[in-house]
Amino acid sequence: MNHRIVTYNVGRILLVEAALLVLPAIGSIIYGEDTLFAFALTIAALAAIGLISTHSKPEKTSLYAKEGYLIVAISWIMMSLFGALPFVISGYIPNLIDAFFETVSGFTTTGSTILSEIESLPKSLLFWRSFTHWIGGMGILVFMIAIMPKTERTAMHIMRAEVPGPTVGKLVSKLGASARILYGIYCVLTAIEIILLFAGGMPMFDSIVNSFATAGTGGFAVLNNSIEGYNSLYAEIVIGIFMLIFGVNFNLYYLISKGSIKQALKSEELHWYLGLVTASVVVIALNLATTTYHIGDSFRHAFFQVSSIVTTTGFSSIDFNKWPVLSKGILVLLMFMGACAGSTGGGLKVSRVIILFKGFARDLKKALNPRSVETIKVDKKTVDENIVKGVFVFGASYIIVILASCLIVSIDGFSLESTFTAVLSCVSNIGPGLGHFGPASNFADFSAFSKLILSIDMLAGRLELIPILILFAPATWSRK
Amino acid sequence: MNHRIVTYNVGRILLVEAALLVLPAIGSIIYGEDTLFAFALTIAALAAIGLISTHSKPEKTSLYAKEGYLIVAISWIMMSLFGALPFVISGYIPNLIDAFFETVSGFTTTGSTILSEIESLPKSLLFWRSFTHWIGGMGILVFMIAIMPKTERTAMHIMRAEVPGPTVGKLVSKLGASARILYGIYCVLTAIEIILLFAGGMPMFDSIVNSFATAGTGGFAVLNNSIEGYNSLYAEIVIGIFMLIFGVNFNLYYLISKGSIKQALKSEELHWYLGLVTASVVVIALNLATTTYHIGDSFRHAFFQVSSIVTTTGFSSIDFNKWPVLSKGILVLLMFMGACAGSTGGGLKVSRVIILFKGFARDLKKALNPRSVETIKVDKKTVDENIVKGVFVFGASYIIVILASCLIVSIDGFSLESTFTAVLSCVSNIGPGLGHFGPASNFADFSAFSKLILSIDMLAGRLELIPILILFAPATWSRK
Repeated sequence: MNHRIVTYNVGRILLVEAALLVLPAIGSIIYGEDTLFAFALTIAALAAIGLISTHSKPEKTSLYAKEGYLIVAISWIMMSLFGALPFVISGYIPNLIDAFFETVSGFTTTGSTILSEIESLPKSLLFWRSFTHWIGGMGILVFMIAIMPKTERTAMHIMRAEVPGPTVGKLVSKLGASARILYGIYCVLTAIEIILLFAGGMPMFDSIVNSFATAGTGGFAVLNNSIEGYNSLYAEIVIGIFMLIFGVNFNLYYLISKGSIKQALKSEELHWYLGLVTASVVVIALNLATTTYHIGDSFRHAFFQVSSIVTTTGFSSIDFNKWPVLSKGILVLLMFMGACAGSTGGGLKVSRVIILFKGFARDLKKALNPRSVETIKVDKKTVDENIVKGVFVFGASYIIVILASCLIVSIDGFSLESTFTAVLSCVSNIGPGLGHFGPASNFADFSAFSKLILSIDMLAGRLELIPILILFAPATWSRK
Repeated sequence: MNHRIVTYNVGRILLVEAALLVLPAIGSIIYGEDTLFAFALTIAALAAIGLISTHSKPEKTSLYAKEGYLIVAISWIMMSLFGALPFVISGYIPNLIDAFFETVSGFTTTGSTILSEIESLPKSLLFWRSFTHWIGGMGILVFMIAIMPKTERTAMHIMRAEVPGPTVGKLVSKLGASARILYGIYCVLTAIEIILLFAGGMPMFDSIVNSFATAGTGGFAVLNNSIEGYNSLYAEIVIGIFMLIFGVNFNLYYLISKGSIKQALKSEELHWYLGLVTASVVVIALNLATTTYHIGDSFRHAFFQVSSIVTTTGFSSIDFNKWPVLSKGILVLLMFMGACAGSTGGGLKVSRVIILFKGFARDLKKALNPRSVETIKVDKKTVDENIVKGVFVFGASYIIVILASCLIVSIDGFSLESTFTAVLSCVSNIGPGLGHFGPASNFADFSAFSKLILSIDMLAGRLELIPILILFAPATWSRK
């Protein structure tokens, strides 16, 4: 393995993080808060380690899949460790493991929090907390590819490890240009949401941080009661729609920007995504209407929560932990599925679910007609059999990771429902679970050990398993 | 499709069932119970329909995979419908859907009951109820192959549809002879258990019916408190060991009977099975010892419940619903896995779990070394890639069936834990779930509709999905 190239690239990421931390540090000065020292110290530490690691350029600049995965995995862990320091040094989250959990939750766009009192935090820390969502949503290494020169091969290995979905598509022939286009779309959409929220009467600061959390499909709120705290139908509709927008494959926005609107609207993944969202909203709304809910409120909350859960954002407009079991069951299924590939959302991804279902239907047909040879098609194109197999292995691995984590975390003794949904919520990067860890609660009650396991789960989910899992494979560290 | 051959074979199964019902009818006479009329009427109905269906032999006797699956699926549904009649006609379970659920639960060796008061049932009905476990355990169609002449091709299609596991192995070159060997081993092992239980002081009737329920890994008990009701350490040890014995691939017993003990003990599936059982017993026992349990009792109950759940029998020696979450979590994982392929147990099967884990490990290695080409080996032999893919598709289908059923059954409004474990328990053919449907409770509270869904789940689990699922595929019924 080429250690030098790993160290060099991780060092560059830490320098990028140092630069990004300047923003909340400026906020600290503007608002006159006591967090400036914490930010400054963190920036200094990042700059020092970053400069040492990037001091000598490695001779061999090409890298293999293994180094690509390692760069991504180690970068995300280091970013989270350093990103936690402002919370610890400023004393607002004095416990390092709690702060690490919170920062991992931020970068992975999960949005699970260990804070029970959010509103008393200084604005600069709240800004940093939500900014991590925005950075993690599109991927900090994609950002690096966008701004720094890289060989195509190196960029491809890094993109494959960080961008979600069963396949990695290039928008244009150069990956650096592709990354810049992705960030361009991301910035424009975020800006539109900020303007719309501000226009509807939300304070500027809240408009910005809530838009960051929406764009990254993260879900950290700045009010204790999440979006419910604004008590604004307008805000719920804007955020609800923008969550769905950020859950769509960004390639489609690129197509639209090039004028190929028809081609974008033909996407099979988009049809399934919108179809399943609509069906879920209708069923949940009707289910809620049979309880104490008014029919209008039923649709309002069903829409917001379905949008929030399917995109793995995790904002809440209401405590859905109190909903009937059918509605909760649908939300749990949506937690598994998640958003579209190539979006900022987590979960298995809609395109994988499509391939799983088509593979399942094909096997049924094959049982009836053993001699039939049929390929799986998505968007009228045949899906390579290796990708089909990969999706099934990924699905099984996803379940194995969730079940194994449940077993470890269950030592803490919370109910099966609470334990399972908390782990599922972390692996799928959603935020709230059910039971003890529902939207009206937080993750503070877990033991420190469980918080570490859940942090690994969040990273494993965000990076789609392989980069994190290979850290535990002996072969990765063997000298051969 | 060849309708005639399906009708003809289903008819023969119904005749076999009529013959098998003679046993409890005789019991009814011996014990002088009021159930004789119910049994006689059912036998008459079965004989009449069976004779009509088999009146004219189909000209073409060869069949294809599709017909093989249909024969198995329709046979099991018809057997359960007619098998339910003695309960309905005698008035002891007057509701047909309840009786159907109970009989499906019997034949599929699930052991979930809708009865809250078991001990007041007449002995002849209790005998029939447990006898269905014994018949369903090895498979009634395998029995038919053993006793009736069949072409090899026909027998193979039927065996493949009814015998559990990722591959079907023949013991000897003729399938009819293989089936006779399987039933021979089955009878001998059942007889030994009856003798051992009776020798330990259990009444003869209880020894027989409990051995039927053990052999089929069913779990219907004749005491309201299951095996706990005997309060006998001896009985728990005998039944605990025999449950494990019936959870082993029967091919190994054939090898042992031929003197190839060494070869039998080399089975990789056996090692995993016994290894996972041992590990689960130790972890649960230590977990229980931290609560109010004495260390001896911890191991006693951990051994019995692990054996009962992993083999998907479902007998209980204690209300494990009150155990700590870690122990319950392990039991839920064992519910997924189940016993060895080619045994009478249900679940995913140990051999599939081995292939799932090895496929998962291979993909991790492939991520590190994209150029590596590695095959999956079990028992030092390469597993065909089509079987590997089949196992992943099966695993995904298993989860899809469970989640879809949960969604439907959740309309009844029981907690997520209760709903999920009840469905898992039915699909894996175990018996008790957790929460509202734990070992101290029963399935009576489900709505009639949910009982039908759960009955389909039990059949789908026992027949390993395909035969039941194709009933819902439009292509099965198309005239093309």
